[in-house]
Amino acid sequence: MIVRQMKTITLVVLLSGALIVHALEPEKNVISAIYKNALTSHESYNNLNELCKSAPGRLVGSKESERAIHILKTQIEKINPDTSYLQNYTTPSWRFKSKSQTTVQYGSKKEALNVVNLGLSVSTPEDGITGEVLEVHTLNALDSLGSKFVKDKIVFFNRAMDNSKINTFEAYGGAIDQRTNGASKASQYGAAGVIIRSLATELDDFPHTGVSRYKDGVKKIPNLAISTNDAEKLSRINKQNKGVTVRMKSDTETIDKVNTSNIIAEIKGSLHPEKIILIGAHIDAWFNTPGAHDDGAGCEQMIDVFRIFKELNIKPVNTIRLVLFMDEEMYQSGSNVYADFVGKEKKKHIVSIESDAGGLLPLGFGIDANDSVIQSIQKQGLKLVDYGIYKTVKGYGGTDIDPLKEYGIPLIGLMTNSQLYFEYHHSANDTIDKVSRREMQMGTAAIACLVYLIDKNGIN
Amino acid sequence: MIVRQMKTITLVVLLSGALIVHALEPEKNVISAIYKNALTSHESYNNLNELCKSAPGRLVGSKESERAIHILKTQIEKINPDTSYLQNYTTPSWRFKSKSQTTVQYGSKKEALNVVNLGLSVSTPEDGITGEVLEVHTLNALDSLGSKFVKDKIVFFNRAMDNSKINTFEAYGGAIDQRTNGASKASQYGAAGVIIRSLATELDDFPHTGVSRYKDGVKKIPNLAISTNDAEKLSRINKQNKGVTVRMKSDTETIDKVNTSNIIAEIKGSLHPEKIILIGAHIDAWFNTPGAHDDGAGCEQMIDVFRIFKELNIKPVNTIRLVLFMDEEMYQSGSNVYADFVGKEKKKHIVSIESDAGGLLPLGFGIDANDSVIQSIQKQGLKLVDYGIYKTVKGYGGTDIDPLKEYGIPLIGLMTNSQLYFEYHHSANDTIDKVSRREMQMGTAAIACLVYLIDKNGIN
Repeated sequence: MIVRQMKTITLVVLLSGALIVHALEPEKNVISAIYKNALTSHESYNNLNELCKSAPGRLVGSKESERAIHILKTQIEKINPDTSYLQNYTTPSWRFKSKSQTTVQYGSKKEALNVVNLGLSVSTPEDGITGEVLEVHTLNALDSLGSKFVKDKIVFFNRAMDNSKINTFEAYGGAIDQRTNGASKASQYGAAGVIIRSLATELDDFPHTGVSRYKDGVKKIPNLAISTNDAEKLSRINKQNKGVTVRMKSDTETIDKVNTSNIIAEIKGSLHPEKIILIGAHIDAWFNTPGAHDDGAGCEQMIDVFRIFKELNIKPVNTIRLVLFMDEEMYQSGSNVYADFVGKEKKKHIVSIESDAGGLLPLGFGIDANDSVIQSIQKQGLKLVDYGIYKTVKGYGGTDIDPLKEYGIPLIGLMTNSQLYFEYHHSANDTIDKVSRREMQMGTAAIACLVYLIDKNGIN
Repeated sequence: MIVRQMKTITLVVLLSGALIVHALEPEKNVISAIYKNALTSHESYNNLNELCKSAPGRLVGSKESERAIHILKTQIEKINPDTSYLQNYTTPSWRFKSKSQTTVQYGSKKEALNVVNLGLSVSTPEDGITGEVLEVHTLNALDSLGSKFVKDKIVFFNRAMDNSKINTFEAYGGAIDQRTNGASKASQYGAAGVIIRSLATELDDFPHTGVSRYKDGVKKIPNLAISTNDAEKLSRINKQNKGVTVRMKSDTETIDKVNTSNIIAEIKGSLHPEKIILIGAHIDAWFNTPGAHDDGAGCEQMIDVFRIFKELNIKPVNTIRLVLFMDEEMYQSGSNVYADFVGKEKKKHIVSIESDAGGLLPLGFGIDANDSVIQSIQKQGLKLVDYGIYKTVKGYGGTDIDPLKEYGIPLIGLMTNSQLYFEYHHSANDTIDKVSRREMQMGTAAIACLVYLIDKNGIN
């Protein structure tokens, strides 16, 4: 596109124009200043680069997770908040010890597949396991087939994410049972192991991991994910040949107890230091990924909200508390530890806000609260329509803040453009070059503005 | 992010909810079917891959442009439209003959810079030219300095794009005078040559080209662009050292006449074949880039609108005419040839729609027309709010369709997420892996729906 004839595009949202709450001028100025600061700053992106480079695969209890805690705490302290400390605790953990392997065998041929361990999956014996492939698309299909067909097989769950959905999180939700419950279901009918098609929107060579759980009482069988391209390949081979077998090998262990921490920091409220606006994200990332979008970006956005408040000298009336949670991906141990702390601390949380949908273009906020609180937060969100925050709606908060709901705390989640998220999610493809500095900073600015507006105007 | 607790996010736009025009059910069904078809299809993305791989640098008159015409016409014919033909014409052209070089020299040091020719720039003599560096940030600065300081210098325009702007097209508009008019201005005061800082939002090593024009009567001096990283470096060197010189070398030529073509294809209207809804994009791309976003994606989106209409058996009342324009980047010759043709043809164009803002997430449509037409098109656009098309507003149509304004034809341009566009624009970084299949298809679906709705409901 050339721009010789380009005119400035007026970002008026026609529909909402008449209804927009006309903010007082100073409020508008602060919002504008926050966006200007965020969009011209490189600090947060450089921070994310440091985190991804120095602490990839920062699963709870790993050396990388310790390094991540150190890096993030140092980044926070550089901003000089009023307090900053570690909330230490212990938790069980899990790790993979060496790379998994999967080979498909048919006739005289053997082909290796791109594979990754699923989180919490047990090991195979040292020599691996081999079994005939049984491809199914649903868990229910196993109920129909029964032990007769399932016993000793390697069950291959090959349901693709539904690309016809506009919101890819919905498509993810529609395919995830294969990963979380597939092994338990297959085990009930005597399967030897499970392979799933990666939960990803596109056809490529990246295997995507994620948590896999065993129901109480079932025999724990190994559970791996292959790339979408290899899922297509395995399905093709299995249809075109008889007696196709798969050999799968994985080496993992559960760990009884690791020492780890959440990170907490605060900018104290000038008028109501005992009232808290919580902003959070999670530190940990799967062993196979730098975790740039999930959730390095979220951590760095929340740290940058603090930087912006300090640089612009915005003095909140209430305390802004930053919580970086450990272990969102496996046990949500950090989240639960923090929720217990809230129960004991008895300080009022006005709202909690999480960023865990990637450093992608922000489009709005999802709110999990009662209707009057939703309406009140929507009023604030509407002030950001000119900045592309066009849907502040009833929705999902976030995994880390979810337990706070039992204390009646409203949960708010940043909603981003979901079109690309599942090309990266839980895979080696979730790298810093997939994060746009400007998009990530648009998210940071949106959160900083919402914090500023809720601090100023309350939620009633 | 894990999704164990994830609930379906309702994409209700609160503000506009009450005002949304409730479409008849069949209309809703067609819109839904168009999105489903677009999002599950890989054909258009594969087409784009073919175009970028086989015909990068498809500047008007080049062999690559001939190959592009062949590829695109073949892709169109595969869909079997009612007509498909080339609109042949001749035009002057320009090409670069060998790679430019720029070296900065200070003290005993020499360093090469990442550089690209600007379009329409004249060559240096074979040995290049050497001159002392004069850094300025505005064209006006040269008026103040005058010939005394400018004569024989290499003027270095180093104004960065303003990253504080939300819409990067606005930031581009605020920096583009350096590229288009900088050489003419510097030449008036006797400069030997011009180097500009690439028009790009981020700091990286890609030089970005684009058109540079000479005012009548000025001596034409060579004009190159260096990467933003090297602009920072050159500025630093120039500040820290005395007598910093630059040697620049480029080899280009203007060509009196080349044979080339626009591509035109139609799905004939069932009721009003003489009335036209035009959809267009441009074939050409700068010599240094595969042109994936600019404007390969636009071409493939418009071709895919035809595929979708045919596959879903949508029979338009009016004729849908696809025009792929040649030479948007330099002379807009294809655009002017088509406008002349419209003047002679005397068929009524209902609207013209262009996609030339990249295959990025679509956010709305810009409309260049009178107020009542704008309001009418907005009514149709509102039916796509649930699909993320939330701003259908007064705005810019597109360079290729711009001359149609004189015939009173409403111009409509697809508006996309602009945050990333100027990381790619006119550079070797504009590659297929920067285009997300789903985002591109969201744009295709939005255009297909708007065409369908305008065809069905008119603009009055």
